[in-house]
Amino acid sequence: MVHQHDESTANEVSTTTQLPSYGSSEEPRVYKVGCPPQKNFAREFRDTLRETFFHDNPLRQYKDQSGSAKFMMALQFLFPIFEWGRCYNLRKFKGDLIAGLTIASLCIPQDIGYSKLANLDAQYGLYSSFVPPLIYAAMGSSKDIAIGPVAVVSLLIGSLLQNEVDPVKNKEEYLRLAFTATFFAGITQAALGFLRLGFLIEFLSHAAIVGFMGGAAITIALQQLKYVLGIKSFTKKTDIISVMRSVWTSAHHGWNWQTIVIGITFLAFLLLAKYIGKKNRKFFWVPAIAPITSVILATLFVFITRADKQGVQIVNHIKKGINPSSVHKIYFTGPFVAKGFKIGVISAMIGLTEAVAIGRTFAALKDYQLDGNKEMVALGTMNIAGSMTSCYIATGSFSRSAVNFMAGCQTPVSNIIMSAVVLLTLLVITPLFKYTPNAILGSIIISAVIGLVDYEAVILIWKVDKMDFISCMGAFFGVVFASVEIGLLIAVSISFAKILLQVTRPRTVLLGNLPGTTIYRNTDQYPEARHIPGVVIVRVDSAIYFSNSNYVRERTLRWLTEEEEKAKAEGQSKINFLIIEMSPVIDIDTSGIHALEDLYKNLKKRDIQLILANPGSIVMEKLLSSKLNEHIGSNNIFLTVADAVRFCTRKSMQEP
Amino acid sequence: MVHQHDESTANEVSTTTQLPSYGSSEEPRVYKVGCPPQKNFAREFRDTLRETFFHDNPLRQYKDQSGSAKFMMALQFLFPIFEWGRCYNLRKFKGDLIAGLTIASLCIPQDIGYSKLANLDAQYGLYSSFVPPLIYAAMGSSKDIAIGPVAVVSLLIGSLLQNEVDPVKNKEEYLRLAFTATFFAGITQAALGFLRLGFLIEFLSHAAIVGFMGGAAITIALQQLKYVLGIKSFTKKTDIISVMRSVWTSAHHGWNWQTIVIGITFLAFLLLAKYIGKKNRKFFWVPAIAPITSVILATLFVFITRADKQGVQIVNHIKKGINPSSVHKIYFTGPFVAKGFKIGVISAMIGLTEAVAIGRTFAALKDYQLDGNKEMVALGTMNIAGSMTSCYIATGSFSRSAVNFMAGCQTPVSNIIMSAVVLLTLLVITPLFKYTPNAILGSIIISAVIGLVDYEAVILIWKVDKMDFISCMGAFFGVVFASVEIGLLIAVSISFAKILLQVTRPRTVLLGNLPGTTIYRNTDQYPEARHIPGVVIVRVDSAIYFSNSNYVRERTLRWLTEEEEKAKAEGQSKINFLIIEMSPVIDIDTSGIHALEDLYKNLKKRDIQLILANPGSIVMEKLLSSKLNEHIGSNNIFLTVADAVRFCTRKSMQEP
Repeated sequence: MVHQHDESTANEVSTTTQLPSYGSSEEPRVYKVGCPPQKNFAREFRDTLRETFFHDNPLRQYKDQSGSAKFMMALQFLFPIFEWGRCYNLRKFKGDLIAGLTIASLCIPQDIGYSKLANLDAQYGLYSSFVPPLIYAAMGSSKDIAIGPVAVVSLLIGSLLQNEVDPVKNKEEYLRLAFTATFFAGITQAALGFLRLGFLIEFLSHAAIVGFMGGAAITIALQQLKYVLGIKSFTKKTDIISVMRSVWTSAHHGWNWQTIVIGITFLAFLLLAKYIGKKNRKFFWVPAIAPITSVILATLFVFITRADKQGVQIVNHIKKGINPSSVHKIYFTGPFVAKGFKIGVISAMIGLTEAVAIGRTFAALKDYQLDGNKEMVALGTMNIAGSMTSCYIATGSFSRSAVNFMAGCQTPVSNIIMSAVVLLTLLVITPLFKYTPNAILGSIIISAVIGLVDYEAVILIWKVDKMDFISCMGAFFGVVFASVEIGLLIAVSISFAKILLQVTRPRTVLLGNLPGTTIYRNTDQYPEARHIPGVVIVRVDSAIYFSNSNYVRERTLRWLTEEEEKAKAEGQSKINFLIIEMSPVIDIDTSGIHALEDLYKNLKKRDIQLILANPGSIVMEKLLSSKLNEHIGSNNIFLTVADAVRFCTRKSMQEP
Repeated sequence: MVHQHDESTANEVSTTTQLPSYGSSEEPRVYKVGCPPQKNFAREFRDTLRETFFHDNPLRQYKDQSGSAKFMMALQFLFPIFEWGRCYNLRKFKGDLIAGLTIASLCIPQDIGYSKLANLDAQYGLYSSFVPPLIYAAMGSSKDIAIGPVAVVSLLIGSLLQNEVDPVKNKEEYLRLAFTATFFAGITQAALGFLRLGFLIEFLSHAAIVGFMGGAAITIALQQLKYVLGIKSFTKKTDIISVMRSVWTSAHHGWNWQTIVIGITFLAFLLLAKYIGKKNRKFFWVPAIAPITSVILATLFVFITRADKQGVQIVNHIKKGINPSSVHKIYFTGPFVAKGFKIGVISAMIGLTEAVAIGRTFAALKDYQLDGNKEMVALGTMNIAGSMTSCYIATGSFSRSAVNFMAGCQTPVSNIIMSAVVLLTLLVITPLFKYTPNAILGSIIISAVIGLVDYEAVILIWKVDKMDFISCMGAFFGVVFASVEIGLLIAVSISFAKILLQVTRPRTVLLGNLPGTTIYRNTDQYPEARHIPGVVIVRVDSAIYFSNSNYVRERTLRWLTEEEEKAKAEGQSKINFLIIEMSPVIDIDTSGIHALEDLYKNLKKRDIQLILANPGSIVMEKLLSSKLNEHIGSNNIFLTVADAVRFCTRKSMQEP
């Protein structure tokens, strides 16, 4: 039966030279398993390095260019403003102006609120929306990202910093450590980009980020209960249990009903505005200007009614004037350097993850490419400059970038506009914020962060990949029930564990023939696939490395044993051949070679022939250099499973 | 031309139902890409767990057995002595007796030397060759392994312990910490085995172990210069620079020529014996009994000539009697618990790596299977028991196991014989070692460890895998130039980095058609493979995960761009189809799904159709659950690349 199938399909694939005497008029074209000429070590190493660090081939365009052209291109590469600036026009400016004004109106109240999350005075949030956007506008290549302090990084840096220094008792030290962390965050980001190590942020999986962001959003919203309920003594911890206990114990005496009325009213207003903007995209500006409108209304209300005398907490004082220098405040020596470095590195990674994700999302929507490493250099430089001008860590804000995009921004000029408005605010109108109630800032932050709870993404993750879902939930509950750092640690650990699990326990499947073809496929996926008597075909679905070589060997032997038992039970012929389909085996290391050798020896003792089908070029190279192909026999390495099976069935017929 | 090729091979593969009107008399059997019924979450989770922890299906034999049979089998599983003990006979005993006596003669001088490496008194080495082998004999399943203290673990534990406690000044504390570390090493080993986490040791790659062992051997040999040259004040550091400086500075006054004569003479004798044993396998016993012969000769020589009065250092005193209890010496509270735990875990991993590697090697030679997890439980139990009976960490010794094997051991009874001989030694003849010169112990250790420098393996590693070579050399130089811990850290880091690099930068290759067939292969490996005009075929050689999804998307687009430029330069037709061969894509997560979706959208804007060929069952499941297959169109998912290409060429002809 197999032989018949064999004959009927013999006219399309291809055996190697091992059976020259078996010629027939229908003999197909003959191919050997290819083995490209061995590369020398230096070349191989260079290729690996290039593919790791320069896979996007950034120097391609510099080929065949004169020296001055190269210089100009390098300048444009580093400062894209020289590229898009040359074709900037009034039409684009109109778009940028509207977008810039819109995001400015959104960022001012957010900045004041976020700086509270970082345990810093309100002006530092505004400072961070002045200098960094300007630098990003010159160096960044995303057209849509809006730069400034963001909720999650503010919460993260606030909670990491207060583990080291008390923000109330040692205010000056706390501030200095914040600048130090910002400085090292900038250094980290720029270094990652410059060394083209940007791929490191990819190790935070999408699922982990969704969980982490959702958890952080809940945590941030819970923190705002302090302001919305007007609670005076509030826990410093961020986990939900401490926060709810704090809320509960202060219920009888600590809540302030006037504050609650203001907070809830405006929260309802903001959520309504958000809903309107979501329902009809034309009204995207409604949620965008709602916060500043709320601030103005609430401030006027408090100013007129003097509700602050009824216990409604107000902002009170924001320092007037532009960013003072803070170079002398950064710790370059002493025990705080290491602490600042650690906090900086963690915040840098989260900041990068957020900014790059935003940049990529909008780049995909407008169909332009973004060089992640270049972005990192821009973000890093802007944070280094920020740390010297009294800013804390800034990055791309998702909510403001979305508004920027919808308001029709064309270039990073919208960031410059925003920056200019913030400058004016700092110079002129900060005193007007005196009577702004804290409750309104809390409401603004709550309405801003709830968008980070992406339940639709969570549902999709659940549907697609359960391991991803575990990682997502681990990060979420870690942040909500323990702390931001622990949530982050859980997210990273689960992501890594998933990778390691995959390389430790790769899949191996049994292949069968699809009747009427020469195709061999997984018998689980294609129930119609037939076993070939006397032959076991196993496909190994992974590179064979030290981490899985023993497993692959043992698992293959287990497949064989199971098939042998089955064959015995069904009274079929003894198994004489084990074919390993090597197509997915993209690489093999010395441990893998040893495992194959052991497998070969083990099979030989059981009088079973090991046959390899379609080893790739790297695997062939290594089989040759380890001389394992001589053990197995070059005759027993075939281009396709079909060829291998044909060889086996012929051989069984010759030697009955 | 392509069409002609298409016609000539149309009779073996298989399109799906999307072209029902294109029927011809030669239409082959039709297969759709299979998608197995979706498993529910609990079942999927259980399967993953089973494959991770119970891939060897240890409970298979318990099926269909009565209760008492099950109990007996479980007993035999835990204590294999009840299995092999039942068919033990005189013939086997003869083999075990000879092997046991041989390894005993080898282990006694080694034990005394190795305990010096661990900064412990000589008797502790002998203790560790008494209790642990007995327990292993009852619980272990390797027939060939010889249990006892080994050089590398002794060096490791010695150097880790002396970082914490001074072995001379705080002798008692040092000893207690050593027992504590041994206790936790045993707990770690037993727990790993019991929780079936044994695969964790696989993360130390073969190459890293070769490098680490080689480096440790050199370090140990260098340490012996102290004894062989008779140097009194010797550095405590183990790196080659400190040691050579120590040797050099003591050259003028610190060397003792009598010691050197004894040391060098016997070293030459031992190496000659080793050479004889290697040349002719019949004389394996020559190197096996050479050490004890040397000890006897040298001791007699010193006793007669009283060379100890000329400055030849001697062993002086070994405590007589069997192992005292040390339960009360283990720290269960206090600051030393954490230190002991850390040292224990590290030593446990190295001990396990060595023992499991040895066990596997000899099991493969004698063709029996070894359950790694079960071995770990045995090794762990023996170390827990050891820590309570004044032993330090014991494991499988490579040199003694090889001798055991060659001497014809049949069962673990040879370990019992060895243990009995050590017992007699402890009870009766320890005083006789008084005049044994330290130099002879140094020579024995040098001749024992040089076998660990496996230069042949290094050459093979260099030939097969350059990354493995780097990892090997990193571990080697780390141990030799820095310290054992740093070498170990380098080895583990490089091993991990290699795994991460693989999952971050998987290979993508361009496929072409082998003329005259329907086979599509890597154009680099098969230079004769032809491109199909208007079609780009890319194979992705890895699961698409968060760590590589962006890379895969960008790299695929770069292949497309390069091919488009090439087509333009050669005046060929525009590229209309991008086929992704998914055979090696064994899994995809949510990030991967997003990347595919982005790719699809990007291509759509460029008016290029994305086509998938041969997605596996897991990938199909995820395409369905994410509804991405509806975007791409189920019609554009094919069983083989050949089907996909046929579809493309037909479509190009229909719409010119």
